[in-house]
Amino acid sequence: MGTTQPSNSQLYIGIDGGGSKCRATIYTAEHQQLGTGVAGRANPLHGLEQTFQSITESTHLALADAGLSADDSVKLIAGLGLAGVNVGHFYEQIASWQHPFKAMYLTTDLHTACIGAHNGEDGAVIITGTGSCGYAHVGDKSVSLGGHGFALGDKGSGAWLGLKAAEHVLLHLDGFACATALTQQLLNHFQVNNAIGIVEQLAGKSSSVYAKLARIVLLAANEGDEVAIAIVKEGSQYISELARKLFAINPTRFSMIGGLAEPLLPWLDSDVASKISPSLSPPEFGACLFAQKQHIG
Amino acid sequence: MGTTQPSNSQLYIGIDGGGSKCRATIYTAEHQQLGTGVAGRANPLHGLEQTFQSITESTHLALADAGLSADDSVKLIAGLGLAGVNVGHFYEQIASWQHPFKAMYLTTDLHTACIGAHNGEDGAVIITGTGSCGYAHVGDKSVSLGGHGFALGDKGSGAWLGLKAAEHVLLHLDGFACATALTQQLLNHFQVNNAIGIVEQLAGKSSSVYAKLARIVLLAANEGDEVAIAIVKEGSQYISELARKLFAINPTRFSMIGGLAEPLLPWLDSDVASKISPSLSPPEFGACLFAQKQHIG
Repeated sequence: MGTTQPSNSQLYIGIDGGGSKCRATIYTAEHQQLGTGVAGRANPLHGLEQTFQSITESTHLALADAGLSADDSVKLIAGLGLAGVNVGHFYEQIASWQHPFKAMYLTTDLHTACIGAHNGEDGAVIITGTGSCGYAHVGDKSVSLGGHGFALGDKGSGAWLGLKAAEHVLLHLDGFACATALTQQLLNHFQVNNAIGIVEQLAGKSSSVYAKLARIVLLAANEGDEVAIAIVKEGSQYISELARKLFAINPTRFSMIGGLAEPLLPWLDSDVASKISPSLSPPEFGACLFAQKQHIG
Repeated sequence: MGTTQPSNSQLYIGIDGGGSKCRATIYTAEHQQLGTGVAGRANPLHGLEQTFQSITESTHLALADAGLSADDSVKLIAGLGLAGVNVGHFYEQIASWQHPFKAMYLTTDLHTACIGAHNGEDGAVIITGTGSCGYAHVGDKSVSLGGHGFALGDKGSGAWLGLKAAEHVLLHLDGFACATALTQQLLNHFQVNNAIGIVEQLAGKSSSVYAKLARIVLLAANEGDEVAIAIVKEGSQYISELARKLFAINPTRFSMIGGLAEPLLPWLDSDVASKISPSLSPPEFGACLFAQKQHIG
């Protein structure tokens, strides 16, 4: 502490696991950022092996980026934000992993995102990217909502917007729904003109493939397309309700994060939109703060 | 032909590939059934390797059931009904497979199901099981609707009913929807009382896992549960519309097949329900008739 030479101070690594990627960043005890690495998905619900592999890989990339060797992982104190670890057996399986760190502190990805967004203070966050979910933490109270994953939940998320649009185009191609500008924009995107051509590109694909359609849906909605507007309104209405449920425990700050936070903003109810404060730091920094607090106690 | 000794007559194998299983049945030229085999899924959209493996395995099981050896496959003329082969490149990839048969004739699973349901005559079918789709064949006209797969389409199917019910329970657990009898019945089914417990059992699972919930939804609807009724009505309304679209080419016969055909019957519009005739033979027999017609020319 207090030294300006990072190599003499305790180093931390904040790791944010997610459904599409895993990001790890190494920090000094004074929060100087030394290096970052990004690897593939790290969601325990979709496989523990892949989760451990993505954590290890992003750690190695972060160490290399910081000019350190892979062996230096044993010097790091890790904070880990992962989906699903609020379920006992996932927590235990990950906590008992023979991890490569000096120490590892584990919590949910929502918790670390919230800590990051408010720089360690209490608050609420809604994440709208490929998926959607909400979390609030005030004193010893916390609430976690949504985030049930594609295609079970995640209303208002990128994957959900994409799924609803794809459903509509397929219903149109079978004669069940009218065409609008959005229909042709999606057919252009897929470069096909029939249902099977779309199914072939979406069947069995992950949420991130569907989320790629969200930009098209939002653009069409902003241009006045009726079908796109109905989809975006249904999604954003859910996000507004999600926010109001988080406000029930009176968080002092509220942030929206993720790739869809900005494009959804004009569609949110004004009582929700007016409460939004900027997110201060990324989830991996939240994971670092969490580890530091747990380690120092 | 005309011989009563099957071993002297040309043998046929009818193969019905599907998203959850592949069924193969060996017939004599006079349609005497000699043996049947069932293997895993055979849907080209979900992988060609697995499709070929399931066809081979179901064939071996059918040969064994018929008291024949695996090498006898070279004596069989095969009819194959597979999803997706109306797409050029799938057709070509499967048609160019080094298959183990004397000859192989390929068409869609919907076509062979329709041929079977009407014993080789023209007609229309709607299949509602794990998925849902419709097909009609009249002279040289045919129409194929729906069947876009879980979770993109397949409205009114078992997987769709299950998904809608699971979505509702999760929305309820987050405080977005009211509980009804169905809510508790589903929680009992999963033996959990929280969202993550349900997500854990459904995340990334195949359509057949969702379809297992359909029975619970239909039972609740029949007992007057409002949420279940709304879900079943939306699904069966789609199936009724699907039927009317098939009727546009004036099929002389119409059958509903699949595990949900009977439970959905009371929910269909009466103009549709009144037109239903019993299915005469299974899809694998349709595949046999198709092969026989193609082979004899």
